Amino acid sequence: MTARLRSVLFAPATRPDVMRKLPCSGPDGVVIDLEDAVPPDAKSEARANGREVGPELTALADGPEVYVRVNAVTTDWFGSDISEGLFDGLAGVVVPKLEKAAHVDRVLGALIRAGRSELAICAGIETAAGVLGAAEVLSSGVALAYFGAEDFVTDMGGVRRADNIEVLHARSHVALTARVAGVPVMDMVVTDFGDDDRFRREAAEARAMGYAGKLCIHPAQVALANEAFVPTVEEIERARRIVAAYDEASAGGHAAIAVDGQMVDEPLARQARALIDGAQR
Amino acid sequence: MTARLRSVLFAPATRPDVMRKLPCSGPDGVVIDLEDAVPPDAKSEARANGREVGPELTALADGPEVYVRVNAVTTDWFGSDISEGLFDGLAGVVVPKLEKAAHVDRVLGALIRAGRSELAICAGIETAAGVLGAAEVLSSGVALAYFGAEDFVTDMGGVRRADNIEVLHARSHVALTARVAGVPVMDMVVTDFGDDDRFRREAAEARAMGYAGKLCIHPAQVALANEAFVPTVEEIERARRIVAAYDEASAGGHAAIAVDGQMVDEPLARQARALIDGAQR
Amino acid sequence: MTARLRSVLFAPATRPDVMRKLPCSGPDGVVIDLEDAVPPDAKSEARANGREVGPELTALADGPEVYVRVNAVTTDWFGSDISEGLFDGLAGVVVPKLEKAAHVDRVLGALIRAGRSELAICAGIETAAGVLGAAEVLSSGVALAYFGAEDFVTDMGGVRRADNIEVLHARSHVALTARVAGVPVMDMVVTDFGDDDRFRREAAEARAMGYAGKLCIHPAQVALANEAFVPTVEEIERARRIVAAYDEASAGGHAAIAVDGQMVDEPLARQARALIDGAQR
Repeated sequence: MTARLRSVLFAPATRPDVMRKLPCSGPDGVVIDLEDAVPPDAKSEARANGREVGPELTALADGPEVYVRVNAVTTDWFGSDISEGLFDGLAGVVVPKLEKAAHVDRVLGALIRAGRSELAICAGIETAAGVLGAAEVLSSGVALAYFGAEDFVTDMGGVRRADNIEVLHARSHVALTARVAGVPVMDMVVTDFGDDDRFRREAAEARAMGYAGKLCIHPAQVALANEAFVPTVEEIERARRIVAAYDEASAGGHAAIAVDGQMVDEPLARQARALIDGAQR
Repeated sequence: MTARLRSVLFAPATRPDVMRKLPCSGPDGVVIDLEDAVPPDAKSEARANGREVGPELTALADGPEVYVRVNAVTTDWFGSDISEGLFDGLAGVVVPKLEKAAHVDRVLGALIRAGRSELAICAGIETAAGVLGAAEVLSSGVALAYFGAEDFVTDMGGVRRADNIEVLHARSHVALTARVAGVPVMDMVVTDFGDDDRFRREAAEARAMGYAGKLCIHPAQVALANEAFVPTVEEIERARRIVAAYDEASAGGHAAIAVDGQMVDEPLARQARALIDGAQR
Repeated sequence: MTARLRSVLFAPATRPDVMRKLPCSGPDGVVIDLEDAVPPDAKSEARANGREVGPELTALADGPEVYVRVNAVTTDWFGSDISEGLFDGLAGVVVPKLEKAAHVDRVLGALIRAGRSELAICAGIETAAGVLGAAEVLSSGVALAYFGAEDFVTDMGGVRRADNIEVLHARSHVALTARVAGVPVMDMVVTDFGDDDRFRREAAEARAMGYAGKLCIHPAQVALANEAFVPTVEEIERARRIVAAYDEASAGGHAAIAVDGQMVDEPLARQARALIDGAQR
């Protein structure tokens, strides 16, 4: 994996034209989708499209990481997705709707049989059982994860809201369990692809909650994500003031000081250092 | 159980007059309450009232489902509530303050001894231990559940707020565990029975979170609940546009399209279909 | 422990002058901090300062409870903090970043070896693993706890926000698990010590969620906490009306009545009684 995945852009594997344009908007990662964006009777053709276009994407110098999203392990399509839908140069497979360790084991087994055990698994946590079992799934050998709000709310029998109150618990719990498992995690899609304000608002929340980036379903969302998941100039300047003052105080034997009217001690100084490090990546 | 429980109206078993009026407001379910609405020294009389008035309610053609709420399994009243407080035609018993599988086992045992093992158990999740143990309780043989905010906050030593921020975590967790257990779940009471705005706001949140309906403590709340837990005309029209466009695209080999400026793929189409199904029940 | 800890004020053990002033603002508890407020190379001097000034604080008549915050059990400083950083009259030790029962066992072992097994352990829950493991930690023999937002968000790789949405899940979960474990729990610090509005807002939320008080890092925050974690005059008057009406109704055989347009039954009456009791402590 790259050092960061601020933006991961999806394209339907039914659309070679869209797939070829995936890198244009500058995403950190791209996903060729064999699952939700492909109708049941087009799965086979979609795999062939992926195998044709995918290598063009992985061959790019300085291109994005390339992933394939397969269908869920409980579907009939999963086996063929792994055996016929992958290609060289992939960073990993995105596996939706994982709910327990046994599901991850099936992915690992299928990858081994296909001779692709080197591939990273990106776990989709997007069902009620998946959220409740997130700690188990994310500590079972996955390298990356995402929280899928649309599937989650459908599974809950609920309704999506602009304020996201109906997913705050699940979204927070997935971030928490991902952190404990040491797995970077991507935030939910914004389906209203013209609503930049919502995207920016959600991205700011997600970054605060510890998410590494956002899934994108439109090229215009990529720039928004790439901007949102790095510190602002103001944040960096403030962090530098904090670190400078803290280091000076530390040298003098103190570790709790006031900077800009805020008490700064070790955790605040660590936050500031982490922010500066993040900005320099 | 009926296909849906949008509204479940409570009446104190000390008030035969109120019990007799329970069906008038059109609730999907009604509860004769032997617990919180009955003082300690009136429990026996309350059971007798229930046995007298209850059968009038269960005899109604097209009437609501009828439940009795017994006292908690840890109280001295519980045994007599089961042996002397039930009557023919009941849909089930509502059991408050369940916290672990062993509590559910006690209910099952008491129902078997009373020859009423056919009754559905509606689990009240309304204590700190109950919320933390919700996954265990709800997967132990209950058919229905509710989240009780007033008892929960009392048990937490907290204070109820209009914005419900103090119960968002518990309310979300109960909805999540109920869904994983496959148990329909009812949302908390609004005690300010004249505050229609609050009821509507909470009901909209609850529906978004996957709750099936709301507990009601006043007849005027029933119509609000019955209206809130079904899709609006605008939602249905939009869902139909989504399904029509998605089906057309699918037939053409695509499954990710734009409708009204929103990306629609399989989970969105499923959400739309579920909404239309819900409206037609 | 005292009956209540509305406010717990921290001072760096590097600052004898600040430590001596700790009781002036009237906190219920004070903490001499050997951890975040002390630089690595000043730990030994800090312990000596604590042993010198601490006994002056514990000797005060009607003074606050006195605690020492040691470094985390996983650090090299922890052992010496326990063996060289404690003094007579302490109420307990505050142990940061506890994540599992084995961590609590290490504290218990160290206290026994130091002949101080009588000391209460106040558990800091302030890492992702600590929040996920809170139920285990808090049921392993600790007497008190706190939720630390700054360390938690640093550990999550997140960013602190004024609306605290990024910590709502963790903060709620810690309150819940603390309640199930029977452990009073203190709410997070407000680092912007001049922002009284934020402090009051957070304190009101925390009280609603069941927190007993707030950690304070500035003397000016103590009065705000002491005021926020007791019922208001309006709340007490309303609670008295509720209890009076409920008791009268109960005597007449009823337990569900209307008071000020609100349905009142047993849990509401219990809430009201708890509020009046809390105000009289």
